[in-house]
Amino acid sequence: MFISETEIIVRYAETDRMGIVHHSNYPIWFEAARTDFIKNLGMSYSKIEERGFMLPLIELTCRYKGAARYEDRLIVKTCIRQMSYTRVTFYYEVFKCCDNSLITTGETVHAWTNKNLKPVNIKKHAPDIFELLNKAVL
Amino acid sequence: MFISETEIIVRYAETDRMGIVHHSNYPIWFEAARTDFIKNLGMSYSKIEERGFMLPLIELTCRYKGAARYEDRLIVKTCIRQMSYTRVTFYYEVFKCCDNSLITTGETVHAWTNKNLKPVNIKKHAPDIFELLNKAVL
Amino acid sequence: MFISETEIIVRYAETDRMGIVHHSNYPIWFEAARTDFIKNLGMSYSKIEERGFMLPLIELTCRYKGAARYEDRLIVKTCIRQMSYTRVTFYYEVFKCCDNSLITTGETVHAWTNKNLKPVNIKKHAPDIFELLNKAVL
Amino acid sequence: MFISETEIIVRYAETDRMGIVHHSNYPIWFEAARTDFIKNLGMSYSKIEERGFMLPLIELTCRYKGAARYEDRLIVKTCIRQMSYTRVTFYYEVFKCCDNSLITTGETVHAWTNKNLKPVNIKKHAPDIFELLNKAVL
Repeated sequence: MFISETEIIVRYAETDRMGIVHHSNYPIWFEAARTDFIKNLGMSYSKIEERGFMLPLIELTCRYKGAARYEDRLIVKTCIRQMSYTRVTFYYEVFKCCDNSLITTGETVHAWTNKNLKPVNIKKHAPDIFELLNKAVL
Repeated sequence: MFISETEIIVRYAETDRMGIVHHSNYPIWFEAARTDFIKNLGMSYSKIEERGFMLPLIELTCRYKGAARYEDRLIVKTCIRQMSYTRVTFYYEVFKCCDNSLITTGETVHAWTNKNLKPVNIKKHAPDIFELLNKAVL
Repeated sequence: MFISETEIIVRYAETDRMGIVHHSNYPIWFEAARTDFIKNLGMSYSKIEERGFMLPLIELTCRYKGAARYEDRLIVKTCIRQMSYTRVTFYYEVFKCCDNSLITTGETVHAWTNKNLKPVNIKKHAPDIFELLNKAVL
Repeated sequence: MFISETEIIVRYAETDRMGIVHHSNYPIWFEAARTDFIKNLGMSYSKIEERGFMLPLIELTCRYKGAARYEDRLIVKTCIRQMSYTRVTFYYEVFKCCDNSLITTGETVHAWTNKNLKPVNIKKHAPDIFELLNKAVL
């Protein structure tokens, strides 16, 4: 299984008045990590969109186990958990670099669509994209 | 069961290059709706924090069924789904005002903690807060 | 001079670890207030974009005089300060409702462009839009 | 004059429905670049806050000259333009890596305060912090 790693340095704007990272930032980091994941496979999500395909989120889950703070260095580990002709499920784990503790896990389910957000069968319309991501699951 | 309604007008900054609301905004709207929910019960979350209690998120789920766009008027309906001495689960439904379609549902699980993010039994330490929220479940 | 008022309730996600609103939220509120301003004139910015015109920011200034906090009710007062065939300058004042204190002022300069972000003369290409906004300056 | 460089990869969430980076992200990137600047001087802004000093923004200016898009690699160049016992002015330039074009410039003015946001004379209360930053201006 292909796993990609993305470094995040916590920004001040990402903290809230509890002094910790606001929970709404993790889905944004997952997305940045997804961008990296696809780039590390040798493709780019920008290019996928240029070819007329999109991967909008249809389901998001986060489990918050610990808190990150301003200036913390984090690593997001990303992999594909499931792949079908119409959907992709990514899985994420966020670690704190200082003590290697797992602070958050997440999952995002995406549907393949065209530019008008209508579902498409990616295997049929872009077999090379399907193969590239499918290979990463094994 | 007590249900509160919160109006959201989609901001330009909340859209992404797909032309729709970026998925990371829904958790922020859920939070704004939670703030309203507690205020509509006659308390305020600011006051709860002043008394030394916090409700950090420990789990978040969103299901995206439709897309909202810039200037859309949305209604978030919020209720408490489950209450224990240490946890609260909120449930949200986001509707588009123009056609009353359900575009997103979500759930957030929170733990009661003190200022240092250590778990507390809210029934024991602030029975009035517990009762107020517990009453809203029925 | 036409002045529009927009209510903002400070969201938790908008605070930072100083306990106050992060400065990057004011430009977003200015934009929400601009959306309101145009709607209150009887047009909508969505419609302007549908007709092929855009108003990207080319300059932004904020002066922070006070701090807003979670759950604070604010009013953004918005007006057009200057109008030419190719540019619009909006001016904003943010007040705290509780004590009517002025906490932030701002200015945004925008250029009229087409969908490809190329400058256009709005008076020539959409005289009705120009007149509507120009009337608001007087 | 000390100049620090910070790499930014444009995130999807940072784009808006114009297809470009929303203007409100630049102040956040300036802040991330400021964090880097101070770290590159051998200090950390987290540590400065731990010692009881804060640097809230009192003025922000951005000039947008070009557009950045999703997945673009940017460099923010940061320096201190002015230093007094009570204020610091940072200056930023954002370049696109692909063609080295300057797309945005910005300036932020900050006041030295204590934890209660009351102004302090940093030269008097923390001469080492003052010297470190002051040296960077020359």
